[in-house]
Amino acid sequence: MAAKTGPMTTIKDSVHDHISVDGVAADLLDTGPVQRLRRIAQLGTVTLVYPSANHTRFEHSLGVYHLADRALDSLGVAGTEAERVRAAALCHDIGHAPFSHNVEELLHRHTGLYHDDVTGLLVDSEVGDVLREHDLDPERVAGLVAGDGQYGQLVSGELDVDRMDYLVRDAHHTGVPYGTIDHERLIRELTFADGSLVLGEGNVQTAESLLMARALMTPTVYAHPVARISKAMLRRATERLLESPDISAEQVRRMDDYDLICALRTAPEAEAFARRYDRRELFKRAVWAEYDDTPAHLREADHETVRELEAEIADRAELSPEAVVVDVPPEPSMTESTAEVLVGGEVRRLADRSPLVTGLRTARKQQWRMGVYTIADATDRVGRAAADVLGLDIDGALVSSVRRRVNASLERFEAGADE
Amino acid sequence: MAAKTGPMTTIKDSVHDHISVDGVAADLLDTGPVQRLRRIAQLGTVTLVYPSANHTRFEHSLGVYHLADRALDSLGVAGTEAERVRAAALCHDIGHAPFSHNVEELLHRHTGLYHDDVTGLLVDSEVGDVLREHDLDPERVAGLVAGDGQYGQLVSGELDVDRMDYLVRDAHHTGVPYGTIDHERLIRELTFADGSLVLGEGNVQTAESLLMARALMTPTVYAHPVARISKAMLRRATERLLESPDISAEQVRRMDDYDLICALRTAPEAEAFARRYDRRELFKRAVWAEYDDTPAHLREADHETVRELEAEIADRAELSPEAVVVDVPPEPSMTESTAEVLVGGEVRRLADRSPLVTGLRTARKQQWRMGVYTIADATDRVGRAAADVLGLDIDGALVSSVRRRVNASLERFEAGADE
Amino acid sequence: MAAKTGPMTTIKDSVHDHISVDGVAADLLDTGPVQRLRRIAQLGTVTLVYPSANHTRFEHSLGVYHLADRALDSLGVAGTEAERVRAAALCHDIGHAPFSHNVEELLHRHTGLYHDDVTGLLVDSEVGDVLREHDLDPERVAGLVAGDGQYGQLVSGELDVDRMDYLVRDAHHTGVPYGTIDHERLIRELTFADGSLVLGEGNVQTAESLLMARALMTPTVYAHPVARISKAMLRRATERLLESPDISAEQVRRMDDYDLICALRTAPEAEAFARRYDRRELFKRAVWAEYDDTPAHLREADHETVRELEAEIADRAELSPEAVVVDVPPEPSMTESTAEVLVGGEVRRLADRSPLVTGLRTARKQQWRMGVYTIADATDRVGRAAADVLGLDIDGALVSSVRRRVNASLERFEAGADE
Amino acid sequence: MAAKTGPMTTIKDSVHDHISVDGVAADLLDTGPVQRLRRIAQLGTVTLVYPSANHTRFEHSLGVYHLADRALDSLGVAGTEAERVRAAALCHDIGHAPFSHNVEELLHRHTGLYHDDVTGLLVDSEVGDVLREHDLDPERVAGLVAGDGQYGQLVSGELDVDRMDYLVRDAHHTGVPYGTIDHERLIRELTFADGSLVLGEGNVQTAESLLMARALMTPTVYAHPVARISKAMLRRATERLLESPDISAEQVRRMDDYDLICALRTAPEAEAFARRYDRRELFKRAVWAEYDDTPAHLREADHETVRELEAEIADRAELSPEAVVVDVPPEPSMTESTAEVLVGGEVRRLADRSPLVTGLRTARKQQWRMGVYTIADATDRVGRAAADVLGLDIDGALVSSVRRRVNASLERFEAGADE
Repeated sequence: MAAKTGPMTTIKDSVHDHISVDGVAADLLDTGPVQRLRRIAQLGTVTLVYPSANHTRFEHSLGVYHLADRALDSLGVAGTEAERVRAAALCHDIGHAPFSHNVEELLHRHTGLYHDDVTGLLVDSEVGDVLREHDLDPERVAGLVAGDGQYGQLVSGELDVDRMDYLVRDAHHTGVPYGTIDHERLIRELTFADGSLVLGEGNVQTAESLLMARALMTPTVYAHPVARISKAMLRRATERLLESPDISAEQVRRMDDYDLICALRTAPEAEAFARRYDRRELFKRAVWAEYDDTPAHLREADHETVRELEAEIADRAELSPEAVVVDVPPEPSMTESTAEVLVGGEVRRLADRSPLVTGLRTARKQQWRMGVYTIADATDRVGRAAADVLGLDIDGALVSSVRRRVNASLERFEAGADE
Repeated sequence: MAAKTGPMTTIKDSVHDHISVDGVAADLLDTGPVQRLRRIAQLGTVTLVYPSANHTRFEHSLGVYHLADRALDSLGVAGTEAERVRAAALCHDIGHAPFSHNVEELLHRHTGLYHDDVTGLLVDSEVGDVLREHDLDPERVAGLVAGDGQYGQLVSGELDVDRMDYLVRDAHHTGVPYGTIDHERLIRELTFADGSLVLGEGNVQTAESLLMARALMTPTVYAHPVARISKAMLRRATERLLESPDISAEQVRRMDDYDLICALRTAPEAEAFARRYDRRELFKRAVWAEYDDTPAHLREADHETVRELEAEIADRAELSPEAVVVDVPPEPSMTESTAEVLVGGEVRRLADRSPLVTGLRTARKQQWRMGVYTIADATDRVGRAAADVLGLDIDGALVSSVRRRVNASLERFEAGADE
Repeated sequence: MAAKTGPMTTIKDSVHDHISVDGVAADLLDTGPVQRLRRIAQLGTVTLVYPSANHTRFEHSLGVYHLADRALDSLGVAGTEAERVRAAALCHDIGHAPFSHNVEELLHRHTGLYHDDVTGLLVDSEVGDVLREHDLDPERVAGLVAGDGQYGQLVSGELDVDRMDYLVRDAHHTGVPYGTIDHERLIRELTFADGSLVLGEGNVQTAESLLMARALMTPTVYAHPVARISKAMLRRATERLLESPDISAEQVRRMDDYDLICALRTAPEAEAFARRYDRRELFKRAVWAEYDDTPAHLREADHETVRELEAEIADRAELSPEAVVVDVPPEPSMTESTAEVLVGGEVRRLADRSPLVTGLRTARKQQWRMGVYTIADATDRVGRAAADVLGLDIDGALVSSVRRRVNASLERFEAGADE
Repeated sequence: MAAKTGPMTTIKDSVHDHISVDGVAADLLDTGPVQRLRRIAQLGTVTLVYPSANHTRFEHSLGVYHLADRALDSLGVAGTEAERVRAAALCHDIGHAPFSHNVEELLHRHTGLYHDDVTGLLVDSEVGDVLREHDLDPERVAGLVAGDGQYGQLVSGELDVDRMDYLVRDAHHTGVPYGTIDHERLIRELTFADGSLVLGEGNVQTAESLLMARALMTPTVYAHPVARISKAMLRRATERLLESPDISAEQVRRMDDYDLICALRTAPEAEAFARRYDRRELFKRAVWAEYDDTPAHLREADHETVRELEAEIADRAELSPEAVVVDVPPEPSMTESTAEVLVGGEVRRLADRSPLVTGLRTARKQQWRMGVYTIADATDRVGRAAADVLGLDIDGALVSSVRRRVNASLERFEAGADE
């Protein structure tokens, strides 16, 4: 029996005002893995660009829980099914490593796990105990976190409450208004059709507004060049840390931000980075290349290959390998295009209705940048070395013109201090 | 000499907080034509959809003045040139008829003037006197309002402060967040290059965000179907009013909202409308057709032709001609596509840089709707008559399917009450 | 049976976001008396001080309905009782005359009715028909509007939802943040104890915050001197209008703002005022006196006496009686001091718990001002005449010092233009 | 020469939107002591009550710099004088220990320094070097931080920009609206009279609003009981940490939040606390007493005496001394009452003009609470022991009634989970 029981807690939130937590969620709130989210920055190193962006995965998780609760209400889902979804909403981020996505790829190479692979964390932990006390199966909750089934789409899908919360919350805390979506309307308009979670009749613009918001927040906030550089540095430092025999990737995955920063500060391999990070002495850009100017073999290179290229560039530029970072983003994703909307009583893919979605897909590719970063006074020689080594179709004299071709829109705030 | 002089007035505004008004603007504030804007609703009949949208052209004009002042500051423009722009910003809307754009086309047919044709209003009026007292030439101010010259672009152009103010203000007052742009950033990033007003380096997204905001506000607010229907009714009533020999189009143009409503209430030709308007008993949709389903001859029909078609439809449906409105919007405009941005030191058209702009252009056409509206209990027979008369390529049985093909996203709030 | 039935309408509000209207409220929405509230400015002439303050009684009434609905939910009140309260909340302001409170006292002298005397309007009108269709007794709904009974306190009492809505809404639209209360918390904390509506345990500050908000909004917004002056002028003009045999106080009471303004514009007795109002050419202050400096006989003078004093002052200053207004506010009210809060399980008057409440009572008296207003170029001679006639204990030479003793905090925005 | 030079940096802030940093401030921004503020939580343990309150001293310092810059502009102060004030504004918090005020008293006992004693930090550090490069004397800047002189009042005084920023910022991040003051108006109305910083004519309410905001934020946020309990625990843990010979108070003072948390996690004396803190397993209240119920000798007891009392209570309750915390807040302060306002051309103390100020003084005393806290399952026996030992004029049976007399308004959010 999973009806809501026990005392209700009301929590004040800067985005959703009052959030009422009860039932299984109230008990989950007191567990270590959920409380740990208080010490994981939602946007990792983005605070180095937007100093107000210090919000945490904990407040975000409360927000996702709140929106899930309202959506379930609006969809008329109650009982055990609803409790399971609420539990998944509150716990959906407990698999995050310190600094959220910043070291996720690195840890995945070591552990094979992404942040939404939470089965292990849910089954064998006090979280699992709480779920079982409420007669909820941890594995099914983990399935919802991974997006399984009809209700999983609400937690992790095209139109999920995760995205609705983070866009509004990130806008509130960074001060960048682009994420200010009409989340109340989105919640009210969610409905199920043919087993899919879709937006009801009359919501093409509502769906578009969600995509627009993300399309504008991505280059301005999430993939801001300064955030990318600092993330690349943090990743590199953590990589060095993992070379120490005393520390495992699984341990890092369980750390919070405090642990990781302190570990970096004390590890001989990483302390130089920690000092730079504390003082915000970030690497500068040596060279950037757009998607079409980046050779395919480089776009597809695996981690080892990239490390070798970095070493080779550093060698040519007479620097230590630590001083060069090659940052190759993943292929531009197309995932939003599957969001669905009811049009004239039929479920239609938004991509088929919305010419804007096609534009967004192209925009994403246009915003893609491969970057090589290094210490402030070596950008010129690293730029030339990188052009040679990476086979960018330019000679040294052209590096600067490449730099100019950069989508300048990605360079902004604190530019003087950073780049 | 047009330096700022005289006492400064500080006005509290719900959008920009404190607005300081001095120099010529402080004197213009006290003139009749500017005070009249207090009684012209910014969004006309949109308040019938969004009840909080009661803001006026006066507060908008103050906002435009404020943003112009800040932009001039940021651009380093001072002295007489700046005073002229500030005067134009504050006065840019004095040519608006009651209910803003709602009866603009109608009056244009009678007077040949649009709301930004303000030369007459500026030269021969107390506004002109104030301008001359400050050694400003009314004709040059009128030129700025019409968008002439380098500085005219700031008042009326692709990236003008008019649009920046109204998007944010309309969002604030309707409660629809889509207009929440980063206007401070836009203002700071304006610059002149090759005699054009452009956005500086690194602002492709900034420019896109302005277009997105408008693209989402248009169907949701400005062209909301209920707003279109009530606007069509108001236009029709005013047309009848103008048939009276006692009242001229020029007189209506000088009225404020109070005058027009009272005139409609007392004119025998229009009082039925006034009663409907006061009670919000609006016409309902008989048929809608998308752009490609509307015959070209209908899309291009002039006013007289449309009146004849309405009469013919009414006749077939056995209704008085007053009870049928055929609403043919103008061709979808493409104007934004000329906005310019600095990229790599060169002025580039946003349309060439931004795949989103292409999407927007298509979206605008997709949102276009021809509509036939009538009294609540005659929608079926008017729908059939309209399909026949207008040569929609459908027989009566298909009207409802056409209706379903309607971009459902345009149907929303208060739907139950309205349509 | 008064369960919620029929279609639900969702209305977007700039303050509360989405408001769902159903049951009797959805039907009341379509009545003339409720739609008329769209054309009654919430704050009357306050827009002459705060140009963004153009919100209406209609949107406020929707807000009050919404908060009542949430409070009923939180209090666990449902069924007919709740429908009755919701109906009262939506209709609570239908008794307002044009420009809300501005001419209320004047009409009361003629009709004996205040804005919350709505029995007549509810019983014999289409509103009454709708109520009866929903099996609700119009007289009992009118009783709730007047504050009768336990649930009447929710609509009109110390801690009513009317006040919660208007403080937040007026802050939103004026831009003055003082009214920004935590209305969600207030709603959640309302409870019944011993038949009274009180705030639950732990809410002394919550209650205080409501009083503080009003204490700061009153002098800054509601009783701003420019608002008082323009209100006095509007009242005077309406008084002249009522001298015409063609128009009755009951008719004026049923007008909307458009009607009244147009009536003033066309009535020979009032057109001079209308012209002034349209151009915002307001009277200026000739003299102000604090509470203790105003003789008791003047503070208690009835309307006729005040008219005679005005005539006498005008006579001495060689002006027409129309050019002098003596404005004597009512005695400072003390009503808030009865709000109650649970403290340690007992119902306690806030006044007994909160030293701030005592301070507020004194502050209200300190803010009280008697004012004499006249045309701009006669303030000096009217000031001297007023001192004489009103028996202010000062000779002509002291008028200016009285003026200095004025609580300067009441003079603010647009001061240059107004006073 | 201290004119603004060098590149300007624009930083996006969630409260003030865009903040432009240039001159000495731009160079100070890159120093270690200023960057360290990124890792000091503005409200320390308050995030355990308001989970969104994760903002830092860094963003607050930027805000204070921004408001100082605007105030200087409005006051017409420029040149070296202004640069000195801007430097002081940006650096005013570099003396804060980890978790801001939470361990300040403790460190003061060891070092004799409060957070605004920054002379040492300014003179002998890279901050001092930057100041000297800009021809600014670090000692004079430190003097401004301490509130010296006419301009020091702007940085640290009754009406300082520090308070204006933190009230608005804390409201934004906690979600508690009480701190939403009209800071733009406050800044505009600051003026100098007789060498004092005062609010100009007409600003009694403006000044009152600042006091009201703080009066409501204090019990609701800053002195929220859960914040007090967790602060008492953090203080106690840090005290134990300082007993270790390896760590000095001066070292702790220079730490950031990461350092302190990691130090507590690894120190044998403190790890139990760290575990509790990480899981938010806070002590619960054993007893509270109002000001008048707390014997004077206890209110005035020094640290050593309190430690002895704790030990004695623990002993009677058969607990380890670590498990009992006696929290005696300092005497209720009265400092605001010296704020000054121009009234009728004369500088008047707000306290003499505002009956609200008197109310606030009394309210502060009324909100004062002595508290004894302990582990969850020992509250009853610790409560009885504390009543005995502390000489509360109650016997064991009355402890619960004392508890009821508690100003219940201090108990709120997450009450279920905490107390």
